[in-house]
Amino acid sequence: MSLQESERVEIEFQPLGLRVRLSTGQPFLEVIRQLDIDLTSSCDGRGSCGRCRVQILRGEVSAPTSAEKAVLSEEELANGYRLACQTQPMGDCALHLPPESLISTPRLQVEGFEVAGEVDPIVRSYDVEIPPPSIDDPRADTARVVISLEKQHGVQGLRWDLEALREIPLALREQGWGLQLGVRGGELVAAAPRSSELLGLAVDLGTTKIAGYLVNLRTGHTLASKGALNPQIAMGEDVIARMARAKESPVETERLQQLAVSALQQLAADLCEEAGFQSREIVEAVVAGNTAMHHLLLRLPVEQLALSPYVPVVQEALDLKAREIGLQFAPGAYLHLLPNVGGFVGGDHIAFLLATRFDRSEGVSLAVDVGTNTEVCLAVDGQLTSLSCASGPAFEGAHIRHGMRSGQGAIEHMSLDNGEVQYRTIGNSLPVGICGTGLLEAAAQLFLAGILDRKGRMGEHPRMRVRNGEQEFVIAEGNGASDTPAVAITQRDVQQLQLAKGAIRAGIRILLEASGRNEEEISRVVIAGGFGSYLDVASAIAIGMLPRLPLERYRQVGNASGAGAKLVLVSARERAEAERIARGVRYLEPARAPRFMQIFAQSMYFG
Amino acid sequence: MSLQESERVEIEFQPLGLRVRLSTGQPFLEVIRQLDIDLTSSCDGRGSCGRCRVQILRGEVSAPTSAEKAVLSEEELANGYRLACQTQPMGDCALHLPPESLISTPRLQVEGFEVAGEVDPIVRSYDVEIPPPSIDDPRADTARVVISLEKQHGVQGLRWDLEALREIPLALREQGWGLQLGVRGGELVAAAPRSSELLGLAVDLGTTKIAGYLVNLRTGHTLASKGALNPQIAMGEDVIARMARAKESPVETERLQQLAVSALQQLAADLCEEAGFQSREIVEAVVAGNTAMHHLLLRLPVEQLALSPYVPVVQEALDLKAREIGLQFAPGAYLHLLPNVGGFVGGDHIAFLLATRFDRSEGVSLAVDVGTNTEVCLAVDGQLTSLSCASGPAFEGAHIRHGMRSGQGAIEHMSLDNGEVQYRTIGNSLPVGICGTGLLEAAAQLFLAGILDRKGRMGEHPRMRVRNGEQEFVIAEGNGASDTPAVAITQRDVQQLQLAKGAIRAGIRILLEASGRNEEEISRVVIAGGFGSYLDVASAIAIGMLPRLPLERYRQVGNASGAGAKLVLVSARERAEAERIARGVRYLEPARAPRFMQIFAQSMYFG
Repeated sequence: MSLQESERVEIEFQPLGLRVRLSTGQPFLEVIRQLDIDLTSSCDGRGSCGRCRVQILRGEVSAPTSAEKAVLSEEELANGYRLACQTQPMGDCALHLPPESLISTPRLQVEGFEVAGEVDPIVRSYDVEIPPPSIDDPRADTARVVISLEKQHGVQGLRWDLEALREIPLALREQGWGLQLGVRGGELVAAAPRSSELLGLAVDLGTTKIAGYLVNLRTGHTLASKGALNPQIAMGEDVIARMARAKESPVETERLQQLAVSALQQLAADLCEEAGFQSREIVEAVVAGNTAMHHLLLRLPVEQLALSPYVPVVQEALDLKAREIGLQFAPGAYLHLLPNVGGFVGGDHIAFLLATRFDRSEGVSLAVDVGTNTEVCLAVDGQLTSLSCASGPAFEGAHIRHGMRSGQGAIEHMSLDNGEVQYRTIGNSLPVGICGTGLLEAAAQLFLAGILDRKGRMGEHPRMRVRNGEQEFVIAEGNGASDTPAVAITQRDVQQLQLAKGAIRAGIRILLEASGRNEEEISRVVIAGGFGSYLDVASAIAIGMLPRLPLERYRQVGNASGAGAKLVLVSARERAEAERIARGVRYLEPARAPRFMQIFAQSMYFG
Repeated sequence: MSLQESERVEIEFQPLGLRVRLSTGQPFLEVIRQLDIDLTSSCDGRGSCGRCRVQILRGEVSAPTSAEKAVLSEEELANGYRLACQTQPMGDCALHLPPESLISTPRLQVEGFEVAGEVDPIVRSYDVEIPPPSIDDPRADTARVVISLEKQHGVQGLRWDLEALREIPLALREQGWGLQLGVRGGELVAAAPRSSELLGLAVDLGTTKIAGYLVNLRTGHTLASKGALNPQIAMGEDVIARMARAKESPVETERLQQLAVSALQQLAADLCEEAGFQSREIVEAVVAGNTAMHHLLLRLPVEQLALSPYVPVVQEALDLKAREIGLQFAPGAYLHLLPNVGGFVGGDHIAFLLATRFDRSEGVSLAVDVGTNTEVCLAVDGQLTSLSCASGPAFEGAHIRHGMRSGQGAIEHMSLDNGEVQYRTIGNSLPVGICGTGLLEAAAQLFLAGILDRKGRMGEHPRMRVRNGEQEFVIAEGNGASDTPAVAITQRDVQQLQLAKGAIRAGIRILLEASGRNEEEISRVVIAGGFGSYLDVASAIAIGMLPRLPLERYRQVGNASGAGAKLVLVSARERAEAERIARGVRYLEPARAPRFMQIFAQSMYFG
């Protein structure tokens, strides 16, 4: 039977124990996705990212493609490792899905820290009783709503959102002529049964991760919080790659927007389900993201943002109807986007500065929001200057040989005790890979033990070995079975780490140099971001990612951008404050710094 | 060959002289529509309106359906008359399309009369020069636009429409950093090359006819005007029928909206083409329509409007983005809908009152806007009271045996000179039917000559004959050939006219009675509407449609609603004035009048 004709085969997925019968003729990745299994992939199934690797345990599959031969070693191919996007079943077979290929509830930082803010939401709700029409009082529904709102609550000059308006006649009649009305700056945006909750959604839209918070707008209380991966990853790992995709065609631009919008919609649905509500009860949403995420979400052109001098389309805060980008919340719900600063420094940075009250810093203070893009802000006597460094996704495990996100089985701590390796994994599972914090600590330990020199070159140690022509330090030995693979750090991994940490340190130095200050003068360092909250500061200092300052000057604050988005959601005053901060921040383009290349090169050194 | 299988046949259309080859298996109406020939039909091809009649000159066609047998007489069927929606070709054939079945550029009243108003448009345009970005000035595009607008024109606090914003980056770069910006109440809605025209669209959206005006917003000058039929006619001739359709299902509601939106979009395109512009240069649109047209255009629920006490969803003026209902104008263009009064008295009535300055009337004045719905307003010492009468589409030729719209070949004037019939047709063509004004004059002449009595019963005259068991008065004899059919008025036509004119006269009487005034006290009567502008006032008085007052008290003002829509389009002050008028008009529900039935019955009498 030829491959063209599809036949039914049985596939067994391990360790899930799942068996399915399906038609041949499609790659495993498609089958896996139809089953709702989240397999990692960041190249949209083109075989170039090498992240969707699976192990064929038995059965016949299609021959390796040239893409697979480029990404997998001969040894791996011999051991049955294949890319799920490139391989098709040719008969019944069994597959092992290695943990590092599974997305598996990654640990995302959504807790943030709560900042006491005033509850002063931009949408206000009013319970009104409305006289029903009669032959003697045939006024329009709107007229009776207007008069009741004015009489009962003193609200004047009401304006109407068309979608909200469409729902009024039926709602009035179904709810017995009493409703809760959501009014935003004089505009009616929602109608609900009397005494309903008033819900808002705050989102930190990161390049890799998204954090969402469902908030009670009357109390400011967080009802539910949840993290998700940004599905745009499939179209590019970092902002540069995604903007390049967006520039390819309007179809790609729209697809990028669709991915982000669907993710936000799903996140809202999940949060609401958890708290016992529905997405259409959300009357206001706030999104904080870097300028690229901001532009891609709104489908704004990115041509001018992707090229020097990296000009955003918009830097002011924006208010638009959520439905304008396809979000389905309350009929007239608005979406507020925090103001951008410039370059890639966007609203997430402003949210971070707002939540940490960083603009009120005295003396010299430093704020670092570590992510795929890392934003750094230096405050000198109240004047804030910010820049963005392309630290890349290495801290998310990308381009690291055994790198993975901070999920189950990821090595997150490592120490060398008299040359003996000690490590700890997330969930205390068997080790399947290494996440950003683990990589950082491992590098620090290897450097402190002299196994890495200042330039990042690997030296001698019993754990050192050569594999596929490359040096690597083995942290965990595999036992030959696929559920405990070997986890090692390669020479190339170290170089990736140097690029990432060098970019951040260079950013800090450039800001200091531009202000004529020294690192020693910094009295306070605020570290934020999912990775930033978990990283070991001493290790980060050891490898020279962060300045050598007393540890007590450092403060790790969790997802401060998310906390800032929540503040902006629940308080009109905080919203105005965010705009004030944005206007006061000076943007610095790193490449403009006179000694940029020199500083960047220096910053890659360890120690 | 069975009917199921389609074969190619040749159809010849007369008098167009068009020959086409096509597949069998579809009714002629569909074929005709594919050829872009506008054949009249108001029942959506269900065979019930009887308006799409064609004459088969030769060739074989499908057998008459029961719908055809109900609508066409045996004589007509014998003469080859058939309904295009019910009949299919069975082989090559030739068809005659009678002029009364063709829509053929009906004469629509779009000229209106021009009222001197202040030009004070709600959208203002500014030519700005914007400094391009550089490595030393990487501010966002918006920031540089904001600063230039403020510096060069003193415009502060600019807000951004998302669609307009999307176009800014490319426009700036293509236009060499100089643009004309359209700003509406502080919001940027359009960007164009410097010194472009600023265009607006005013629309009188009638139940049967639509009148559109393309206006230069800077000068207030009308650049082009055009009439079109409301394509919703296919889903119901009057507001009651259309609302019944809308209530059937959301699909029907959406279809009704789509028909109206497409018609407005096409009208805009035609107007722009005529004046040498493009629809996307329209930065503001204004629509005046009765409440049913208003609600159907916005897809607002009509359940409560269709039932007593006839409550509209909204009576305040509305401003929404034109794109919210699918209109494609300038990216951020708004659509303004004039305020409604109540019942079916809508924004078109307000526009009429505004344009005629009717609210400034002294003493007792009457305003009548004749249409499928006729709105009547009585002013007594500055207090306006309005109602709407369901006068129906008889004046548009519907339900009249040889009725047609006021197009080529329609009899529009008739007199009886010593018993001799004299008539004149539009375009001085051979007579093919009779339009509303012709019908009105004919009835007046017959009544004055004693051929009709007060109750509308037909008497004796050499021109009287009995056909299909019904009495009729022959105005024009047919010559047997299909290009000059006989045109007659039947007893049933007279009854239709009585219902229409009786509804209007009853409305006038009810208003007077409610105000305790007599007809003789009326010092001024303003008649508007397409039909109202052409009707012969003396005839209308003769048949008792209008009060018996000296002719000099009457004034026919053309399409005053269209003129009012234009005023509201070009002037913010007139827009506020329209809202003030709407708030001051008292709405009267005719059915609520104590003697409604009695007055209506009396009003059907002639004389």
